[in-house]
Amino acid sequence: MRRVFTLACAFVWIACQVAAQAPAQLPPPVDWQAAGLMKGSPPPEGKQVTKANWLSYPFIRWSFQHSRELFPTKPVDRGPTATALAADLKELDKFAFDDDKGSPVTFDAFLRNTYTDGIVVLQKGKVIYERYLNGMTPDTHHMLFSTSKSFVGLVAAILVSKGVLDENAPVSKHVPELAASAYGDATVRQVMDMRVGAKFSEVYTDPKSDIFKYVIAADWAPPPPNYQGPTNLYATLAALTEREGPHGEAFGYKSASSDVLGWVASRATGKSLSELVSEMIWSKIGADHKGYYLADPLGVEVAMGGLNVTLRDLARLGQTMLQMGQWEGREVVPKSVVEDIMKGGDRDAFAKGNQPTRPGWSYRSQWWITHNQNGAYLAMGVFGQRLYIDPKAQMVVAKVGSHPVPGNAFTDAIHQKAFDALAKTLMK
Amino acid sequence: MRRVFTLACAFVWIACQVAAQAPAQLPPPVDWQAAGLMKGSPPPEGKQVTKANWLSYPFIRWSFQHSRELFPTKPVDRGPTATALAADLKELDKFAFDDDKGSPVTFDAFLRNTYTDGIVVLQKGKVIYERYLNGMTPDTHHMLFSTSKSFVGLVAAILVSKGVLDENAPVSKHVPELAASAYGDATVRQVMDMRVGAKFSEVYTDPKSDIFKYVIAADWAPPPPNYQGPTNLYATLAALTEREGPHGEAFGYKSASSDVLGWVASRATGKSLSELVSEMIWSKIGADHKGYYLADPLGVEVAMGGLNVTLRDLARLGQTMLQMGQWEGREVVPKSVVEDIMKGGDRDAFAKGNQPTRPGWSYRSQWWITHNQNGAYLAMGVFGQRLYIDPKAQMVVAKVGSHPVPGNAFTDAIHQKAFDALAKTLMK
Repeated sequence: MRRVFTLACAFVWIACQVAAQAPAQLPPPVDWQAAGLMKGSPPPEGKQVTKANWLSYPFIRWSFQHSRELFPTKPVDRGPTATALAADLKELDKFAFDDDKGSPVTFDAFLRNTYTDGIVVLQKGKVIYERYLNGMTPDTHHMLFSTSKSFVGLVAAILVSKGVLDENAPVSKHVPELAASAYGDATVRQVMDMRVGAKFSEVYTDPKSDIFKYVIAADWAPPPPNYQGPTNLYATLAALTEREGPHGEAFGYKSASSDVLGWVASRATGKSLSELVSEMIWSKIGADHKGYYLADPLGVEVAMGGLNVTLRDLARLGQTMLQMGQWEGREVVPKSVVEDIMKGGDRDAFAKGNQPTRPGWSYRSQWWITHNQNGAYLAMGVFGQRLYIDPKAQMVVAKVGSHPVPGNAFTDAIHQKAFDALAKTLMK
Repeated sequence: MRRVFTLACAFVWIACQVAAQAPAQLPPPVDWQAAGLMKGSPPPEGKQVTKANWLSYPFIRWSFQHSRELFPTKPVDRGPTATALAADLKELDKFAFDDDKGSPVTFDAFLRNTYTDGIVVLQKGKVIYERYLNGMTPDTHHMLFSTSKSFVGLVAAILVSKGVLDENAPVSKHVPELAASAYGDATVRQVMDMRVGAKFSEVYTDPKSDIFKYVIAADWAPPPPNYQGPTNLYATLAALTEREGPHGEAFGYKSASSDVLGWVASRATGKSLSELVSEMIWSKIGADHKGYYLADPLGVEVAMGGLNVTLRDLARLGQTMLQMGQWEGREVVPKSVVEDIMKGGDRDAFAKGNQPTRPGWSYRSQWWITHNQNGAYLAMGVFGQRLYIDPKAQMVVAKVGSHPVPGNAFTDAIHQKAFDALAKTLMK
């Protein structure tokens, strides 16, 4: 049962808020190399990382940097030349700020306490801080989990801006296979903004729960004996027929919505999501490395959480957003799309969405908008992934981690405190 | 049953010689893009390539260029800088030679008739011919199948030359887990040269056959319902306890031997096979691209056939061998190792090895030696993979394909005719 819980928590952020309880004491940050994970021929039992344990601590310390060694993947091609990131490094390790309990904490301690694997901070386009822990390097790809959602959101928003997608059209216009599902009559925009009334059950104690099928269908976990459910993501989405409310009302964070969006974008363009992300984003931001998506058994990219990239490349996307969609003077994301995301989504709808750690925020095109005084917005993923853009401080933070508790209740407040304090200092 | 046959044939070259019968008419070379394989969201039934059909025609036309999208993989890192290959292109498409039936055939027709995906020919280190078909490009990784064996063979031979491995030591010295197996008392050299008496059954009509378990264990095919056998390669090797003869006598082409060798090399060095191939070879030959191995469920590289590389990089290794192990004036493979391979293995032992299409050849350190007048030797893999080194003609041919019949009976003679004729012309 614990396995089911852990698996499910990995994908469904909101439910984890409620369900996850802080352990009496968190385990110390294990270094995967020191711990001998996956070392040996074969690695001894207890040190093997497999599909069955890759979402559990301490195995996540290895798996999030090696997901390609566990799963089929589809490449996200980069452009022909990488753009070097200029650097103007600052000493930030000892930079201190008050944590969410009012106690002073250094940036170094914050990184360790949040089980950070790597962080890159840009100010005015230059790297001012870069740090790798737990065996990660500048060339290591890291699982982004739900940070991936903001990529498919960006793809969809660009397609809407170009008139390829009609945001007011129902999902079924593009994907007839979803006509009979609870997503069929939701509009593309409602899916983009996660205001869909489809029921996506997340009952961790019920193996028949949608999230459990979802994880199995993506082949992210071995199926139970005699499993008869769907064996690919699309089939799972088409089988979501129950509703819990009307479309277009309350914000509801449902991972399935991101995969519906990926399906819509692919069907509308005739291209796979990895092709779309490559052509529209990755090939245009001077990326150092290809990215890659985990793929389901039909080769479909796991839009809700399967993207893996290096940290500097993630920072490059953040800088592109900070520059209102421009990279090296060329448009990657239309300015109108960036402005629309920065403006945010419906805050009243968001307030109904059970996000106690994100008061006053909103959600737009699969991005989180803080509506703080700096107008900061972000992409984020469970276990501590962040791409944070602070326009006023001209700061971008790309950060990845492998926190033992897959719930934002343990990471949201401290991250916001850290980023707020850092922005404030940089603006001095 | 046909599936079992096809799967098994993919790995066991020698058995296919006997078992495979030429279809009355071979299918025309299908282009995977034109055929719409894996096109669509999702691809329609009949166009989907999955673990269940990836070794069958026409699906192989797509899968051999996209194995990473079907399987977990481990990277083989390259060095920091790629070496450009100089070019001095020649018109070879219309170059004609007599095929194995004495009929004239153009090089272009030869490539199409052997279902070629790509070919690079070097003469004196320069690219004189380069051609891609079936959607392949210079940046496409291609399954090498048993060409991979020559990589683990090279690693082992280098380790022997450096004294890290004792070629006369029994396998069990390095891998105690194999002590009770039929490989336990074989020497490292006997395994390198495939002169092991272990029984490795290849009965395609018997789902309990070793080769069937082997394919399942590597996760290269879905297990049958209620499968209870081994679920990783090492467990499969340890379970090979039956013998069919003494060690050190007849040549016997058994794929399991390559994986035993990989295990020995990893255990002796404490490094994975992908690390060894990277450190000892791939990082030193100016490779353009990382390679990657398909990995079994424990993350162990499939030494017998799981390597994927780009064609120019494969040619770089060939050129390194041609240069007696040197690349850009630096030693990659000790000269003594190259000389030992060129000298060949025991030809009498080979003659007992049921290789009717390779008269007078021998096998040494997982390389095939033709003992022809040019002293040519090669690495090869089923479905048409070749890395052919002709020292006298100073010619290297790297060639990959996806032939519908996984048996050397249909490709051996024509390839040798083509390479002999080409060498002869180039030497004029």
